[in-house]
Amino acid sequence: MSRKIEIFDTTLRDGEQVPGCQLSTDEKVVIARELELLGVDVIEAGFPISSPGDFLSVVELSKAVNVGVCALTRSKKEDIDVAGEALHHAKRGRIHTGIGSSDIHIKHKFNTTREKVLEQAVWAVGYAKSKGVEVEFFAEDAGRADLAFLAQMVEAVIAAGADVVNIPDTTGYCLPHLYGKRIQYLFDHVKNIHKATISVHCHNDLGLATANTIAGLMAGAGQAEVTINGIGERAGNTSLEEVAMIIKTHKDLGLHTNLKSEKLYAISTLVSDMMRMPVQPNKAIVGANAFAHSSGIHQDGFLKNSENYEIINPADVGVPTSSILLTARSGRAALKHRLELLGYQPNKTELDQLYENFLIVADEKKSVNDEDLVAIVANTPLLVQSK
Amino acid sequence: MSRKIEIFDTTLRDGEQVPGCQLSTDEKVVIARELELLGVDVIEAGFPISSPGDFLSVVELSKAVNVGVCALTRSKKEDIDVAGEALHHAKRGRIHTGIGSSDIHIKHKFNTTREKVLEQAVWAVGYAKSKGVEVEFFAEDAGRADLAFLAQMVEAVIAAGADVVNIPDTTGYCLPHLYGKRIQYLFDHVKNIHKATISVHCHNDLGLATANTIAGLMAGAGQAEVTINGIGERAGNTSLEEVAMIIKTHKDLGLHTNLKSEKLYAISTLVSDMMRMPVQPNKAIVGANAFAHSSGIHQDGFLKNSENYEIINPADVGVPTSSILLTARSGRAALKHRLELLGYQPNKTELDQLYENFLIVADEKKSVNDEDLVAIVANTPLLVQSK
Repeated sequence: MSRKIEIFDTTLRDGEQVPGCQLSTDEKVVIARELELLGVDVIEAGFPISSPGDFLSVVELSKAVNVGVCALTRSKKEDIDVAGEALHHAKRGRIHTGIGSSDIHIKHKFNTTREKVLEQAVWAVGYAKSKGVEVEFFAEDAGRADLAFLAQMVEAVIAAGADVVNIPDTTGYCLPHLYGKRIQYLFDHVKNIHKATISVHCHNDLGLATANTIAGLMAGAGQAEVTINGIGERAGNTSLEEVAMIIKTHKDLGLHTNLKSEKLYAISTLVSDMMRMPVQPNKAIVGANAFAHSSGIHQDGFLKNSENYEIINPADVGVPTSSILLTARSGRAALKHRLELLGYQPNKTELDQLYENFLIVADEKKSVNDEDLVAIVANTPLLVQSK
Repeated sequence: MSRKIEIFDTTLRDGEQVPGCQLSTDEKVVIARELELLGVDVIEAGFPISSPGDFLSVVELSKAVNVGVCALTRSKKEDIDVAGEALHHAKRGRIHTGIGSSDIHIKHKFNTTREKVLEQAVWAVGYAKSKGVEVEFFAEDAGRADLAFLAQMVEAVIAAGADVVNIPDTTGYCLPHLYGKRIQYLFDHVKNIHKATISVHCHNDLGLATANTIAGLMAGAGQAEVTINGIGERAGNTSLEEVAMIIKTHKDLGLHTNLKSEKLYAISTLVSDMMRMPVQPNKAIVGANAFAHSSGIHQDGFLKNSENYEIINPADVGVPTSSILLTARSGRAALKHRLELLGYQPNKTELDQLYENFLIVADEKKSVNDEDLVAIVANTPLLVQSK
């Protein structure tokens, strides 16, 4: 029995608020349509009260797609009113409202008490419900909140009608086993928890957002909040593509999503280009080198059987093919393979001599291309030019 | 009782073999000296038999630094001979030799049997020991190996004299809880395990390298194999900076390293520049945005108390200060803060009007700089220009 995980994409809200990543409404519509084709369940479209441009984006995305469209608010009447208005055209609208749940946020950000925060949370959920949309509540900084108080808050907002309750690790502080235990604690202590979907929203400040998300899903959460390329505030949010491929590769988790993984590479490139936000070559799944094999040991093993070094077929994420790059760290097997693609059939003695000459060139140059190889062949007298 | 974790840096071996990242010997020496100052315990300097350039690098690094210098080999006599020669000048030399441990590698890469692999492993460790250096054994593709066979292999190589045994997740396949269980299994089943240090070497194909490394250390491993900026084959290796800051931030893990975290940002920049390998802005710890706060909610909370949104003090990793960036997603608190830095003291009414004009500019531009702010102030008639 595999459990369906809802994918809540916040590329256009938590991602778009990053310095330099701002998009026009038209650009947001283009990305939203691609997210719908990719198979996400809900698109967080913006924070309507924050600016007229963000309001307009939520309006236009609501018209443009058929999947869920979500608008962020604080737990304030004016925020919720404006969000309700912006979602008017949504086929499946959702208001995402919430307040701090950790003592540090309650004291240092809101300068208030647990009791007053709880009261405001319950009020905000009830008021958002009155707009006739789905309501998701976020317990900000839940990663550092007192667990008993967090459980009390989750129970109260579910009783007030929240359809989804988001347990964010706002500062990216948690370790995977501890974040998983937090979610498990809620399932063990909140008696109405099965009336709502628990959502996980992680940040990558310590490089653990993906692992924390998976730990939360294993503990029972039913929704993952993610962004394309892991963009987002500071070190970013959980990467959609990593969660997608972990769930797909590890069938033993007993989870599935609606995502069409073969669209991942194209949408990663689209978002990176439109947001002017480069993806580093060694980014998992979508980086330029994610399927590039360069060391001699690896190239040799890969050529014998791709499963030796590849756990994901590049075609599954929309990358046309794995690549073998020739550098000073390449071995004879990779050189022979590339020579054969060029039409040469060196025997063992020939290959040994070619390899020696190849290494001299490769130590000088950063990488050896086909033109260099042709020159190396021409300068290796022993070789029977069997092309 | 805090346990010391040895940091084995392989930026100059597993990192340097990446397409486009090749360095000259002189460049490697510069980075190795910085790694020594950073406080790493062992530097993997290259794969000497792979090319004359790599051989020379191991020789020169052995002369240049006082920390451990390690040379990679296959489990072959010629590899080990050349590595032993390259390490001649090392104050603390180490040969890193090994062979595949998973059935897929044994069958599809080596076309042999478990018995023969075991025999070769034991022989290679013994032969490497005869060179008078430390010996580290790698059980390649241990992440997918049969656990009972892996335990048998680890026991045999420790009996043969291995000082360190590396349990690599070569393909980046493992989930953190399962990788941790693998390491735990070895501690439970290998009777001579306390005679050697167990090392964790993870790859980031599913975005889990850091989490897997931490899971392995929690289960008893005593050495972490890492690279600066997480560079390395395909999606890269575990990031040194992430492991460093997790161990430093989470004292509850009961671990420590010799790393001087305030040097992290500078060495990240050095490696990125020399290897021409960009670090994405949303990279944890060392990305350009890792300490940048942009949303209104976050900026407001951050200005009230940095602990609201920051779990790491940027100065601890050598970043001079956190930054507040003004965009359409910024709120009044951030605008007021920046105006005050420019010398303006708007009252509430003035701020409201300035904020409206600010949003118009911010919706048009990607980010609002100080020059824009001065123009906004000049174009807001109500304002008493209190500068």
